[in-house]
Amino acid sequence: MVNTRNMVADNYTPESVAEAVRKYDGVRRKQAIGSLVRSLHIDNIDVVASYGEDAAVIQNGRTALLLAADGIWNKLMEVDPYWAGYCAILVNVHDIAAMGGRPVAMVDVLSASDDAIMTEVSRGMHDAAVAFDVPVVGGHLHPDAPYNVIDVSILGVAELENIIYSSKAQPNDAIIAAIDLKGRIHPSAPMNWDSVTMKTSDVLRSQISVMKDLGERHLLTAGKDISNPGVIGTLGMLIESSGVGAVVDLTAIPRPDLDALGITFEQWVRMYPGMGFIMTANRSDVETVCKKFRKTGMAAQVIGTVTSTKKFTLVKGEQETVLFNFCEEGITNI
Amino acid sequence: MVNTRNMVADNYTPESVAEAVRKYDGVRRKQAIGSLVRSLHIDNIDVVASYGEDAAVIQNGRTALLLAADGIWNKLMEVDPYWAGYCAILVNVHDIAAMGGRPVAMVDVLSASDDAIMTEVSRGMHDAAVAFDVPVVGGHLHPDAPYNVIDVSILGVAELENIIYSSKAQPNDAIIAAIDLKGRIHPSAPMNWDSVTMKTSDVLRSQISVMKDLGERHLLTAGKDISNPGVIGTLGMLIESSGVGAVVDLTAIPRPDLDALGITFEQWVRMYPGMGFIMTANRSDVETVCKKFRKTGMAAQVIGTVTSTKKFTLVKGEQETVLFNFCEEGITNI
Repeated sequence: MVNTRNMVADNYTPESVAEAVRKYDGVRRKQAIGSLVRSLHIDNIDVVASYGEDAAVIQNGRTALLLAADGIWNKLMEVDPYWAGYCAILVNVHDIAAMGGRPVAMVDVLSASDDAIMTEVSRGMHDAAVAFDVPVVGGHLHPDAPYNVIDVSILGVAELENIIYSSKAQPNDAIIAAIDLKGRIHPSAPMNWDSVTMKTSDVLRSQISVMKDLGERHLLTAGKDISNPGVIGTLGMLIESSGVGAVVDLTAIPRPDLDALGITFEQWVRMYPGMGFIMTANRSDVETVCKKFRKTGMAAQVIGTVTSTKKFTLVKGEQETVLFNFCEEGITNI
Repeated sequence: MVNTRNMVADNYTPESVAEAVRKYDGVRRKQAIGSLVRSLHIDNIDVVASYGEDAAVIQNGRTALLLAADGIWNKLMEVDPYWAGYCAILVNVHDIAAMGGRPVAMVDVLSASDDAIMTEVSRGMHDAAVAFDVPVVGGHLHPDAPYNVIDVSILGVAELENIIYSSKAQPNDAIIAAIDLKGRIHPSAPMNWDSVTMKTSDVLRSQISVMKDLGERHLLTAGKDISNPGVIGTLGMLIESSGVGAVVDLTAIPRPDLDALGITFEQWVRMYPGMGFIMTANRSDVETVCKKFRKTGMAAQVIGTVTSTKKFTLVKGEQETVLFNFCEEGITNI
């Protein structure tokens, strides 16, 4: 039997995790969003929600149209165009799922410097589009670009009253993380937990549709898919846009066997988990929520509590540290 | 009075125009689309139309959801990020308008290498979004990219029965070009006719809404906004996707005073006209269609006829030449 006290991956402190998250590119690069949003904003009566949410919500009668776009980090495109194409679809499908919506269709803008890269990117996109059964229905191609860029945009639909927002977490809500721990560190990208390419379409679709189910049953107060900033960074964005605070118990965050994988806890919490959601819910709904994710093979558990402090605190046993103080500085500053 | 027979811009032949269009990057770079489309396609029952149209058409009850995406050529981004940002919005709004739809909202993915470029691009996007009253509601920002890229995607709505497709031109239809000739050669981009930045929002919105009106009255058989391939290249794409042919009278194509502008006719027909549509209609509807555009200050007239030949022929007086023979080679090969 392994003595967990001596395991390397357990040698983290709240401060070492806070440092790692604060300095992480995936989190830091969100800081430019605020000024961009302010420069672009124009009022529109049909727009129910926009920046700060995974997808914008546009009222169209009693239906909500969801619109999102995501680009893929250039570093990923350079090391693995197939996985970049796959991820371009994956993150967009998640943006709609996280809002409780049904993904309907996607469009892409692909800039490619050569045919080999174009082929690999579109192969990755095709495989992910088939796996999640969301068609790519159009877009634009720059076949002679001086760079390789894939940007995808997605349309989804939902009933307006069933939408799950990032911005509605309330003090005393439980914070729930749901992550598929059955996966691998992606061979091309050490900060990507690939929990998707080895799964059947049935498994992926059942996992992605949990959020829609939770939205229809009004079992969450807020939710977001876990993206590049990792589980803690993404939760930070949810907490910031809700105008609240959080206390997170680091020992409760779902994780695979990190020592077997040879990675630290600090790395794990920054990784993009492929299939993962961070949510808040009333205490009384926690078990129902977690069970729904577990039924699809995902780990799901309460990792903390929403507070009214505007501070985001990390705790491990007796130790604690303030990761973000939103009174002083935000992550996105939207 | 000027003797038009001696004017430089009139010294074109069908063959010189055909050569210029065939060799134009804006046309040639469409050839890679076909193989990309084949690699991405998956069947979906709700997708009424996709590739080959300016926007994909997705059935949602009796409503059609329109989804399109467009990127901006890197060369434009390099010379004028403000105009690139403006155009990113402009071309997307046109994609929805061309289908007879109402533009609802846009999302963008902006990659920028420095803050100055980011500011200029977003200033251009903001000004265009205000001018056309279509909000940018979200997206993604790469603040530390090794390149400058703006990709925008747009959502629109229409009644399914009122959609204007690119692919439904019929033999014997009249071909109509509508272009706003009141403009300037854009100082940063000699292949861009800027007919928009000097116009009031009211004028722009009235021009863009003509297509929606024509769709609702079922006055067109097909239509497309004139984009980078220019008036002839764009018509070529419409004719190709309709599986028909065309005879175009070059002398009928609306043009500003080319000699005063110091440009050739070959350049004019390749230019992106800012505000322009190419359409096909029953002969009996031609006058109604042209009048609607003229009321908004645009030039509109019949420039040719749809044929059943699968050949695209250019005519000037007694001279004629085959520009494209779609039996042998297509423009997009979708």
